Amino acid sequence: MRDFSNDHSALALNTATLGHNLDGFGAGWSPEQIIDACAARGMAGIVFWRREIGTRAVEIGDRVRAAGMEVVGLCRTPFLVGSDVPSDLMEDAHASIDMAAALGTPVLTIVTGGTEPGTKGIAESKKILADRVALLAPYAAERGVKLALEPLNPMFGGNRTCIYTVQDALDVCNAVDAPNVGVAVDVYHVWWDRNLAASCTAAGERIFGYHICDWLENTTHMLLDRGMMGDGVADLKAIRAAVEHAGYAGACEVEIFSAQNWWKKDPNDVLDTMVERFRSDC
Amino acid sequence: MRDFSNDHSALALNTATLGHNLDGFGAGWSPEQIIDACAARGMAGIVFWRREIGTRAVEIGDRVRAAGMEVVGLCRTPFLVGSDVPSDLMEDAHASIDMAAALGTPVLTIVTGGTEPGTKGIAESKKILADRVALLAPYAAERGVKLALEPLNPMFGGNRTCIYTVQDALDVCNAVDAPNVGVAVDVYHVWWDRNLAASCTAAGERIFGYHICDWLENTTHMLLDRGMMGDGVADLKAIRAAVEHAGYAGACEVEIFSAQNWWKKDPNDVLDTMVERFRSDC
Repeated sequence: MRDFSNDHSALALNTATLGHNLDGFGAGWSPEQIIDACAARGMAGIVFWRREIGTRAVEIGDRVRAAGMEVVGLCRTPFLVGSDVPSDLMEDAHASIDMAAALGTPVLTIVTGGTEPGTKGIAESKKILADRVALLAPYAAERGVKLALEPLNPMFGGNRTCIYTVQDALDVCNAVDAPNVGVAVDVYHVWWDRNLAASCTAAGERIFGYHICDWLENTTHMLLDRGMMGDGVADLKAIRAAVEHAGYAGACEVEIFSAQNWWKKDPNDVLDTMVERFRSDC
Repeated sequence: MRDFSNDHSALALNTATLGHNLDGFGAGWSPEQIIDACAARGMAGIVFWRREIGTRAVEIGDRVRAAGMEVVGLCRTPFLVGSDVPSDLMEDAHASIDMAAALGTPVLTIVTGGTEPGTKGIAESKKILADRVALLAPYAAERGVKLALEPLNPMFGGNRTCIYTVQDALDVCNAVDAPNVGVAVDVYHVWWDRNLAASCTAAGERIFGYHICDWLENTTHMLLDRGMMGDGVADLKAIRAAVEHAGYAGACEVEIFSAQNWWKKDPNDVLDTMVERFRSDC
């Protein structure tokens, strides 16, 4: 396991931590301001959301690399299953892959979408998901992009996800069986899973991303009340040990949706706290 | 699997469905009104909450049986682990067991409480939980009461539960190893679990209760937005098949926390809908 107690060179920012994924939250920093602030702190890189990139993917990717960092990932494909699949699904999914390629990031995250209309339970939605990921995988591979299936906390069942554990994500990976389809492990979603370490071992090199934050003891909102590392009950060091034991050696990406706390703070303070907590608690 | 398409003799009401567990919700029906309304509809029985019973446990239990039904269960022990364990834990836990015995119900539900202060993750809290359940089990056995550990949806991690799946509950059962310690399977909490059927088989005769409602596709509140059977995405028939395949042949208890919908309706309409949906969707 890597020793980060005096080293945050593996730390990355997901811009959701600064509130940029939702209108009216965060300080409204531009991608350029974020790049400069992360580079000044010696971070490994940044994960962006599509809405921040617009038509400037090449420009922003180059700027990140010129600042000595990497674009660690891009959020995300459209929902691939469930009621909220866009009418232009394949076109939009291809656009997300194209954007990842233009940014020069190796990883595009998939939040799957929920239960397929007209079905109940979990099995049929996972099968439809696998079929659609299988359609996208070659297009992504041709552009050097890996697809990371992110299981979500079961509270997001119904309308946001149909995979709830790393095991579930691996089921889909196994069905697709493409080398560029893997898993994103986010402690917020999977910290509670007794099978997590075993599932990470089973995932092995298919772990394409590791997302950190904390699960607050008293979570007050389903979406927007994530905690800073160290402020909650997730066993962050044990989870990182499991992920790294499986072979993961990439960035640790901080993704904190926090409308009433961290999104109200000065982004400089948020970034400084991230660095400190990464060294002490992750 | 039992055929309920023209039979609701296994249907039971958890009074939470009528909003009685929270002040200011529901129609404020007394236990007697609830007993009469359930008996009139030919239900199997009722599950009460301690706050409704007060000092009238024997009286209410007798009244249920005089109406031709059973007291199917009682909610619940105090939290046994986590920050919200009462200072008089053993005394209060014994009081809950005494009340179950006085009601003449065979099952007392345990919602475990959350992560033990000063710990992270899941393992230590489960161990403390098992130690405390082991202390209570003989006291309950002497009074003819079974203790049903109820795993909760992972969204209730931190402050309400430290067991998230039937597998987790069985871990605790196995550690305690007492014949009167088992599991309550609530579809709201476990519908998403790919291992559910296998876990139910492993649980076998240790399934002491089966709770039904539905998981709404668009759940809007962490606690109080459960759906009526048939209105959501849970595969209710498949889950009941798994529970019954494991050997469960008891009541199916409807437990719907629904502040903005079912709690605002006339309880008579709620009960009538329960009967109809039990036959058509469960």
